[in-house]
Amino acid sequence: MTEYKLALVGFGGVNRALAQLIAERNEGWKTELGFSLKIVGVTDLFLGSLVGREGLDAGVLARLPSVKGALAQLPGGTVEALNEAVIKDSGADIIAEATFTNPVDGEPATSFCRWALEAGKHVVTTNKGPIALHGAELKALALRNKVAFEYEGSVMSGTPVIRLAKQTLAGSAINGFEGILNGTSNFVLTCMEGGLGFAEAVRQAQELGYAEADPSADVEGYDVRLKVVILANELLDAKLQVSDVSCQGISALTLDDIAKARQEGARWKLIGAATRQADGSVSARVEPRLLRNDHPLAAISGATNAVSFTSPLLGAVTVSGPGAGRMETAYALLSDIISLHSTVATH
Amino acid sequence: MTEYKLALVGFGGVNRALAQLIAERNEGWKTELGFSLKIVGVTDLFLGSLVGREGLDAGVLARLPSVKGALAQLPGGTVEALNEAVIKDSGADIIAEATFTNPVDGEPATSFCRWALEAGKHVVTTNKGPIALHGAELKALALRNKVAFEYEGSVMSGTPVIRLAKQTLAGSAINGFEGILNGTSNFVLTCMEGGLGFAEAVRQAQELGYAEADPSADVEGYDVRLKVVILANELLDAKLQVSDVSCQGISALTLDDIAKARQEGARWKLIGAATRQADGSVSARVEPRLLRNDHPLAAISGATNAVSFTSPLLGAVTVSGPGAGRMETAYALLSDIISLHSTVATH
Repeated sequence: MTEYKLALVGFGGVNRALAQLIAERNEGWKTELGFSLKIVGVTDLFLGSLVGREGLDAGVLARLPSVKGALAQLPGGTVEALNEAVIKDSGADIIAEATFTNPVDGEPATSFCRWALEAGKHVVTTNKGPIALHGAELKALALRNKVAFEYEGSVMSGTPVIRLAKQTLAGSAINGFEGILNGTSNFVLTCMEGGLGFAEAVRQAQELGYAEADPSADVEGYDVRLKVVILANELLDAKLQVSDVSCQGISALTLDDIAKARQEGARWKLIGAATRQADGSVSARVEPRLLRNDHPLAAISGATNAVSFTSPLLGAVTVSGPGAGRMETAYALLSDIISLHSTVATH
Repeated sequence: MTEYKLALVGFGGVNRALAQLIAERNEGWKTELGFSLKIVGVTDLFLGSLVGREGLDAGVLARLPSVKGALAQLPGGTVEALNEAVIKDSGADIIAEATFTNPVDGEPATSFCRWALEAGKHVVTTNKGPIALHGAELKALALRNKVAFEYEGSVMSGTPVIRLAKQTLAGSAINGFEGILNGTSNFVLTCMEGGLGFAEAVRQAQELGYAEADPSADVEGYDVRLKVVILANELLDAKLQVSDVSCQGISALTLDDIAKARQEGARWKLIGAATRQADGSVSARVEPRLLRNDHPLAAISGATNAVSFTSPLLGAVTVSGPGAGRMETAYALLSDIISLHSTVATH
């Protein structure tokens, strides 16, 4: 039975939920999944850091107060985020990277991934930044160092989408996809269908904690654009940069547009899409699209996310589910570890 | 590079479409999938049989006229369906079983699977009968003989559902599912929402080729029941027999019921469902359910199928896509071969 030593980089909601899962389920995983996990390091810009090569108590970590430097209150902890030391020198086999997404240069998460892969450690991450901006480099680095680099949660949180397409739809010759890849903007559109104006709908999303104080990453499509780059590069073997993807959000949609769509048996959705062209190139865009009510994505309401893959053999195959949530995203990290375990176990 | 020798048992639409895929794509699969396929035998109750250990021309087979004994027109062919000889003695590594579903005892398909597994051959099948009625026995037989037994297409044709749940949702602790697992009955309900009475809607389904002359397997839920047994046994580790699943179809639904549902913001759907109970047992049923419009299955219209899995970690994750079609179902056989190749390659 394999025991993986795990270092948690970034200890916000996601890695905290992973610690909670480990506290509750690690014993069961030994028989169910064929491995168990031992946390040997934690580091976080706000909370500090802690290394425990013999294993840290996952339950204690999960319940850690969210106060500055809290890790320094535990034996051996420090208020400093010793990221490089925790990644390279805690004895971890796997680095679970769940820091914030930086859409400009993917830092510091990209450096965290790079350090880990260069040190021969597997990396699982839920962070869009490193994958969308530096995915090819990091994948090559993982390959060179014979370690796994998994990032299922970077697109739709715990809802499987990358592995669904690459594994269960292998050989189906996927030639494009359309997705509702941002729960906040979809929630705003659902509210507008209920009669709220755009500004009011955004305010409601903010009150419910769906939208940031500055909602532009969500409603202007920038968040979706990163996910489109990840999916297109992964599934269509594209080599897209973020700037290759045209991007238009939903802020120009009016209640009139929404009402007119309804009369026509259709709905406006913010869609991220990519298609393989006749010449083999891949074109991708983010834009509001008017979907007829019988389109597989038309009924995806509220904060749910969905992707519809098209292939000449199957037509449309669509998966929908949560696109966010701390426990859902922590599950994505677990699913990455399950995947790397099956690869490691058979090689 | 691996070349698998394939025998096709039952040469109706599905295996014929597989022959067509092989004719068109075999060369590409060598690099894309790491294997190629060579057809060494075909047998069919209506068309006769043919063995060609050096490889049969997939394109010729795909274009074979659908006339009685047609395989006898090819060199070495015979009007007799020499099923046992083709399965055991054609030199095949893999048997692709795609004969008709017998919901009573699963024959003759179950015997075909048994012969193949006992002879140490991998089996891929799209046939509900053997899996729903004799799945545990056949899986044990495959395990004993160290061969693969794959049947993704038995539930939703080419739309991945078994592997989606077992592989991409591993560790999510799925505790139940609801599915729209019969395209004909769903098409009938969609027609009824358009104002057609039940009998008229069935007639329209028959005219379009969706429904059999005797539509009862579809509209009374018997087809769905077989699929519920397969999914519950596979994903919830249940040990259900077909008779354990209560079954009620849609023939008692009236246009009044449908209209009343619409007024309440809901839709009637024929649902196959299973749930793990508090005591660990699994209860399963087939019945019309009134789904609120925001239910993940409410918008699944026409001949599309869908399954929504529930788990404590993720809530609902839903997959939808084609539930029938010759090419779609042939893809399911290919996906089974891809899966067995990845297992064989790493063991």
